[in-house]
Amino acid sequence: MPKIVDHSERKSHIAEATWRVIMNQGMKGATVRNIAQEAGVSLGALRHYFTTQQELLAFAMNLVKERANARIEAVVSLGLPPKELVTRALMEMIPLDESTMAEMEVWFAFIFHVRNTEGEHSGLNDGVYPGICHLVDHLDEQGLLRQGLDKDNEAERLYALVDGLALHAMLEPGRIDKQRIIRVLNSHMDSICRE
Amino acid sequence: MPKIVDHSERKSHIAEATWRVIMNQGMKGATVRNIAQEAGVSLGALRHYFTTQQELLAFAMNLVKERANARIEAVVSLGLPPKELVTRALMEMIPLDESTMAEMEVWFAFIFHVRNTEGEHSGLNDGVYPGICHLVDHLDEQGLLRQGLDKDNEAERLYALVDGLALHAMLEPGRIDKQRIIRVLNSHMDSICRE
Repeated sequence: MPKIVDHSERKSHIAEATWRVIMNQGMKGATVRNIAQEAGVSLGALRHYFTTQQELLAFAMNLVKERANARIEAVVSLGLPPKELVTRALMEMIPLDESTMAEMEVWFAFIFHVRNTEGEHSGLNDGVYPGICHLVDHLDEQGLLRQGLDKDNEAERLYALVDGLALHAMLEPGRIDKQRIIRVLNSHMDSICRE
Repeated sequence: MPKIVDHSERKSHIAEATWRVIMNQGMKGATVRNIAQEAGVSLGALRHYFTTQQELLAFAMNLVKERANARIEAVVSLGLPPKELVTRALMEMIPLDESTMAEMEVWFAFIFHVRNTEGEHSGLNDGVYPGICHLVDHLDEQGLLRQGLDKDNEAERLYALVDGLALHAMLEPGRIDKQRIIRVLNSHMDSICRE
């Protein structure tokens, strides 16, 4: 009887090995050979799941996005009061621990790799901006957004703030820590929400 | 009589060729051979100015920083009213035209290259954060900062906002244009300054 293998789990296992290779060696080390070795599978087995290197990298990149979305959905399902819900969801978009930091690092490596290989029009498509628009709408629907604020402008400002904090969390971990990031985010939420 | 060569100009010329190579081929294309070809100089001439590839890359990266600093100093020297001075200086930190966009692209490519080759502790050291602290101090000294705001917190928030806008300007040029960036930045300045 043949072994029963969970294909989806096996693909995720290979994607996670891809992340580790990128973390340790950069995108230039992310060859199918290195990734197969890191995942502990043969080159043939890897090729069974991913025909090309590009297919594997696209899957690994997409898994970063899916993991982040799953974390945000888990926060949303907690049934928190609206301001707390929004703040907690935003915190899931900023790398505040080792594992989300690794995801962010891999995400940026991918983004720049894709730009270099496919041209700059490939751009960013991580779904964060529509997600933030949705959170600002939620604050507004719950009557929490301060009067006189423009929702479109506030979504763009919040999006820039969150990605800026995420970037600094990754590039300057010695200067800006988790507490400092949370304090800045809370002060911004206070500034756009009714008291 | 030997030709008189402006060494500093020649080095800048090679650094600019380095930027173009990185823009077109990514960091993996930034070999001394490719850069010499792009600059239209012999490998020997290039080696006269830069002994190693690392020395050349460090010089090219530093020149990005110097150009940005020079633009900011030029704004500061205009003698503008404080709120306008700060807003205009911040706008110099966000890529709003083709040439500053290229600088930003090169800067990020360098940052990730350095992280992959020297480890993540090399971090970010572009002088932007101290510069922003200085601008917030200036607003405060001129009595323009709204009462009750914490300067340290506002500097961190403004720094994240500016780098987030810069990142989105680069990665999502089709979605967020110059006018939109300026509108968001102005609305933020209004929110932290007295009326």
